[in-house]
Order: sequence, then structure tokens, then C-alpha cells
Amino acid sequence: MINLDLKVFPTWQMVEKNELRGSYAVVIDVLRATNTIITALANGAKEIIPVPEIEIAWEMKKENPSYLLGGERGAQKISGFDLGNSPLEYSPEVVFNRGIIFTTSNGSRALNSSSKADMVCVASLANSKALAKFLANSLKNLTIVCAGTLGNPSLEDTLAAGKIIEEILALEKNYHLNDFGYISLSTYLQNKANIFQAISSSPNGQKLKKLNMSEDIEYCSLMDQTEIIPIFKDGNISNYPRIL
Amino acid sequence: MINLDLKVFPTWQMVEKNELRGSYAVVIDVLRATNTIITALANGAKEIIPVPEIEIAWEMKKENPSYLLGGERGAQKISGFDLGNSPLEYSPEVVFNRGIIFTTSNGSRALNSSSKADMVCVASLANSKALAKFLANSLKNLTIVCAGTLGNPSLEDTLAAGKIIEEILALEKNYHLNDFGYISLSTYLQNKANIFQAISSSPNGQKLKKLNMSEDIEYCSLMDQTEIIPIFKDGNISNYPRIL
Repeated sequence: MINLDLKVFPTWQMVEKNELRGSYAVVIDVLRATNTIITALANGAKEIIPVPEIEIAWEMKKENPSYLLGGERGAQKISGFDLGNSPLEYSPEVVFNRGIIFTTSNGSRALNSSSKADMVCVASLANSKALAKFLANSLKNLTIVCAGTLGNPSLEDTLAAGKIIEEILALEKNYHLNDFGYISLSTYLQNKANIFQAISSSPNGQKLKKLNMSEDIEYCSLMDQTEIIPIFKDGNISNYPRIL
Repeated sequence: MINLDLKVFPTWQMVEKNELRGSYAVVIDVLRATNTIITALANGAKEIIPVPEIEIAWEMKKENPSYLLGGERGAQKISGFDLGNSPLEYSPEVVFNRGIIFTTSNGSRALNSSSKADMVCVASLANSKALAKFLANSLKNLTIVCAGTLGNPSLEDTLAAGKIIEEILALEKNYHLNDFGYISLSTYLQNKANIFQAISSSPNGQKLKKLNMSEDIEYCSLMDQTEIIPIFKDGNISNYPRIL
């Protein structure tokens, strides 16, 4: 019998980089960075370059003047940027065949902290079923990195981690969960009938509501919308190449 | 309407000390430190002095030669100590009217990190109902500090936090949960019918089983066994004084 580890971390700050060696990593930031990345790629964006700081984004823009600048600080669009961090802004007419330089408070930093893994996948509720199938087939040790919020766990990322675990265990039983993996699965199972309501009343949900971004919460609560599996490799994110 | 915060932290390392000012703190280490403290006091121990390091324990012993030395490293009794970290060792014939100097890997450190709070209570599943009543009546902001395991969340502490939250909300609705508070409550509700089974199959449960300490898991999974509320104040832990 194969023994595989499936670890979940509640924040990217809790992951020791070396722990990721030899495993596949999954980075989750449901509200809203990883949803936005998945949406942009689903709508034809060519690649996304996640960077941890605004200054680095501007430097990258100099080297890639045709690229769009996207992201947020404090949930708001960054001054001078083309796009904020709402997935609804990343429509086909805006992003098709475009490169995007992208910086957010938690998600793009979580991605950059996970680069030691053998492969880094980008996840949200929107692609969790397709991603789980891909991961269960890999038979690799798995590390799910929830972006969290400024160093604290967030409910929406924990729910998505739990959903991915439920889907993986349905396909492959030989995964051994760490404590937060079991906590994530329990939290998801307890709330699966009311995901939108749970996310909507969470602190990050409430914050977006106050900024009149309720539509984003609704969109980011939808499950299994796409089979897109964005892969972060060598500094940029693109679709996992598949023969259909 | 009063607005009160009820925050839960998955590990003591995640708490910023200043955050505790003006609130009541609750420290949880189900396997096994806080259970052991509650048991010792229930069995008549006079006071418990939690210290973060073994060397400090030996120094305290010099000043208090009549005190017992208790605690663990790697779940095992410390060389030269009178007692380990199993609550079953702290029987009335051993601890009645004795002082105990106590050091553990997670629990006693969590206690020492919480000392900025207005009051620090010691909790486990064994006293959660009584504690919740005391806390709900206080109408203070509350911070529940799970000890966790060497910087990572642990299932058993999260379950106990969830149980305390359920009991508090049944008495006083005006508490606003942080994300990990909601996660703890969900995890508890999903597992409340099988607490022993969940703890027993968790990584810390498995570890104790391998060390032939299954009885400890069974004992520490019991809920609502006592009304003892240990209070950590000025460096030592004793019962909250109550007129019966």
C-alpha cells in the first residue's frame, strides 16, 4: 500500500519552504486572487506573472510593456493599474491573448512562497473537482497552502481546501491528512450545503460587501465551474497543457 | 446591543501579545497539559507553576523544595521529574495540598505567552461547559489560544475551542467570531458525536497510542467532567475562587 501525505497549511507564512520539496503544492486564495487567475486563463489570458510587491510589478511592466497590470492592496485597485482583483473584470474582451502582471496582498505572495514544490497548482472552489482528479492521479505527496489573510487563517480558503480533500479522498484513499487537513475537511462538510452563506458572512465576505463587491463573493462561491488547472512555474502561471 | 469579539488562534505562536490586552484569554492543550492541570486542581493540588523551560523548573524547585516537578518533552516524563504529563498520574494521593512546577512542550508555553490578558483561564473538554458559563457572564472580549503542536494547529484543541464556542453562543449571542472561531465551531459540530474517535485517529492521538498512552486519550476526550476553572495569574495557576 502506498502511503501519501496530504498536508494543509492555514496560511502561507506557516509553510517552511523546504517542506514543499518533492511534493505538489496547491495554492488557494478564494477571495479573490486564485479565482481571478483561473478566470483570466479561462478567458484566454496567455500568462500571469504573480509578483509579491507593487514596485516589482512596475519593473516587470517596463520589460513587458504590452502586459496588463492587475491586483489590489486593501481589496482596492492599485493606483495606475489596468485592473483590480475582481475576477469579473477579467473578461475575454479584456484579457484574451494578453499577459498580466499581478500582485495581491495574500495570494501572489503565497504563490511565490511555494516555489520549492515540484509543481505548484492554483486552486479555488471553481476548479477543485478537476484539480482533485489531476492530483489523485499524480500519487505525489500534496501540500495545500491556504493564502489566509495577513497571517491569519481564512474561512473561504479552508472551505476550498476541504472541498479538494473530499474530492481527492473519493478517488484515492491512501492519503494521510495532517490536523489542519482534517479540520478543513470537517469545516467543508459542515458547511457544504451553504457555502455562499458561510463565505458571505465571514470577515472577508463582510469586507467585500462594504466595498460593494457582493457580486465577487457570489462568483467566488461557485463550485466546479471549469477544468482549468493553472500551473505556476518559472515565475509565471499558465494552463496545464492537456490533449483533449 | 453589545458587540463582543470572540477570537480563536490555532497556535500560541500566532497570538500577538498586545492583542490580549483588555480581553479574557482561554488556553487549551487537550493532549494533555491543560487536562492535567485541571485534574491536578480537581484532586486538591494547591497551585501549579507553569514554566516554559526545564532549567527554569529546576531553579523553581530550589526555591520551593516541597513542590513536585511535572511535565514532558516528546510526550515522555523528563529525567529526574516526579511526574510526567499524564493526567492519570495526578491522583489525589499524589497531588493533594501539593504545589507543582510544570513544564510541557506546548501548553505551558502557551500559558506564558498569554499573560497580557486581563484574565487567563485554563480549558479542555473536561471543563468547557462550566468555563463557557463563566465567560458568557463576563461580557468581555474573549481570545481562545489553542496550544497547537510545535507551531502547527492540532485537531483536539480546535475541537475543544469549538465546544466552548457552542456553549458560549447558547448563552450569549452577541459574540462576533473570527475565521478560526467559525472553523473551530464547524469542526466541533461535524465531529461532536465521535469526539474520542476523531482525537484517537489524529496525529497526536496516534503518537500517544504508540507510546501505550491510550488511556490518556480516552480520559482527555471526556466532556464536562468538572466545574473547576483554573486561573493563571502572577505566574501560578489556582482555582477560581467561588462561593458555593
